[in-house]
Amino acid sequence: MLDSYRLDEKKKVSLKDYDPEDTAGFTGKDEIEESFAKLKEELQDIQERLYASKTNGVLVLFQGMDCSGKDGVVKKVLAGLNPQGFRAESFKQPTGDEAARDFLWRAHKVTPAKGYIVSFNRSYYEDVLITRVHGRIDKETAAGRLKHIQHFEKMLADNGTTLVKIFLHISPEFQLKRINERMENPEKRWKFDPSDLQERHYWDEYMKAYEAAFKATGTKTNPWHVVPANNRWFRDYLVLKIIVSALNKLKLEYPQVAIDPLPRKEG
Amino acid sequence: MLDSYRLDEKKKVSLKDYDPEDTAGFTGKDEIEESFAKLKEELQDIQERLYASKTNGVLVLFQGMDCSGKDGVVKKVLAGLNPQGFRAESFKQPTGDEAARDFLWRAHKVTPAKGYIVSFNRSYYEDVLITRVHGRIDKETAAGRLKHIQHFEKMLADNGTTLVKIFLHISPEFQLKRINERMENPEKRWKFDPSDLQERHYWDEYMKAYEAAFKATGTKTNPWHVVPANNRWFRDYLVLKIIVSALNKLKLEYPQVAIDPLPRKEG
Repeated sequence: MLDSYRLDEKKKVSLKDYDPEDTAGFTGKDEIEESFAKLKEELQDIQERLYASKTNGVLVLFQGMDCSGKDGVVKKVLAGLNPQGFRAESFKQPTGDEAARDFLWRAHKVTPAKGYIVSFNRSYYEDVLITRVHGRIDKETAAGRLKHIQHFEKMLADNGTTLVKIFLHISPEFQLKRINERMENPEKRWKFDPSDLQERHYWDEYMKAYEAAFKATGTKTNPWHVVPANNRWFRDYLVLKIIVSALNKLKLEYPQVAIDPLPRKEG
Repeated sequence: MLDSYRLDEKKKVSLKDYDPEDTAGFTGKDEIEESFAKLKEELQDIQERLYASKTNGVLVLFQGMDCSGKDGVVKKVLAGLNPQGFRAESFKQPTGDEAARDFLWRAHKVTPAKGYIVSFNRSYYEDVLITRVHGRIDKETAAGRLKHIQHFEKMLADNGTTLVKIFLHISPEFQLKRINERMENPEKRWKFDPSDLQERHYWDEYMKAYEAAFKATGTKTNPWHVVPANNRWFRDYLVLKIIVSALNKLKLEYPQVAIDPLPRKEG
């Protein structure tokens, strides 16, 4: 089931081929609830083995349009992890120290140590998305940055970091509905940013920029995953399934204890 | 003159072709003293323009065998820079947080912001030198890391960092003389490390590892420089000349002030 959502061959991708309403045949939340709970337990167990073995770091990277649910998915899927081995990072417009360095600097600083899980809400991919869409960098610079990203991610992988890259795929109609909700609901209004409405005009350009990113950086080792995200319950379920599946490939084991914990006295 | 010390074409290099005693025809310190003082003034002036314009960062990276003068050259050549725009970093055996990340992590963290100069006393190159010489990584891993280094340095360059990579080239005989000085001189004895004597047995292997590094990462944009370092005065002079020449290529200018500093009242 996961194969159809994975982009791992550096070939041309058209997001039009992916339906944001897709639920892989499931018709409602009830159908996956039990499986979701089991997967969460499995993830917690994996985290313990990861922390104990300290053989790998895990970086779960979320990208998506405004209102695609990046905050929500971190809350629903990754809450419950042991916070001593997990940290959620998010990236806004770079300022000061960050803007004075190369575009990978601030992200590299907060990559996971071995034994740890870190989530990225947005990432260095913004430096080939919003910047490209608004013409702040030209086509050649964007292509150069995508190469740098691919190299950087390979370097991370070669040094023991497992990357799980997830694109939360929504439709423009779904986004508009969510923006309206934000404006109407006093408890959600703080999340409304007038620029969200502005960015909607660039939808097609964003999709093109994402497609270019998937083509350049979706590799066997560091694939992208397109997650249909118009239905939150399916979005959360699929994201969790993708993460658990990626981490199971590591075959994490508790380290062997080489010493005898209760040495007996001689004689 | 500088061309003959520059490795910028990713081709096979043999360090045997470089004489550590070479002084480019100069016969003594007196001959370059005046020129050295002028170059130091020029470097200070460049630093001011660099700091004011904030268009580039500058990373001066020193590698070399024990006793090749890495500490000395930082003191002789870079002391005198405005410390508000300059920082000297050095790298020992990675521990804790550093060892738990990829081999470029701790270096990337301390790369220069735009407007700043940073020197590296040793660097991520140790991860393809000492580790390779002692067989802690195999040939393939070393080759992979050299590729990662080349990509990383290109990424830095593409994002406005000028790298000046300098190898301080000494002979094994010169090193032995220095080690003996260290042991005999109470003021220098603290610098003596018994493992220095151990490492001497691997001299040829180190030279091979360096040659592989120069071949893989000596590019037009990020060349290596082999500095004959048996004569300290020539070593310092050549290093200073290389740095000034590299920074002059940036054509740094003070930024234009667009506002009228003393606006007159109307009427």
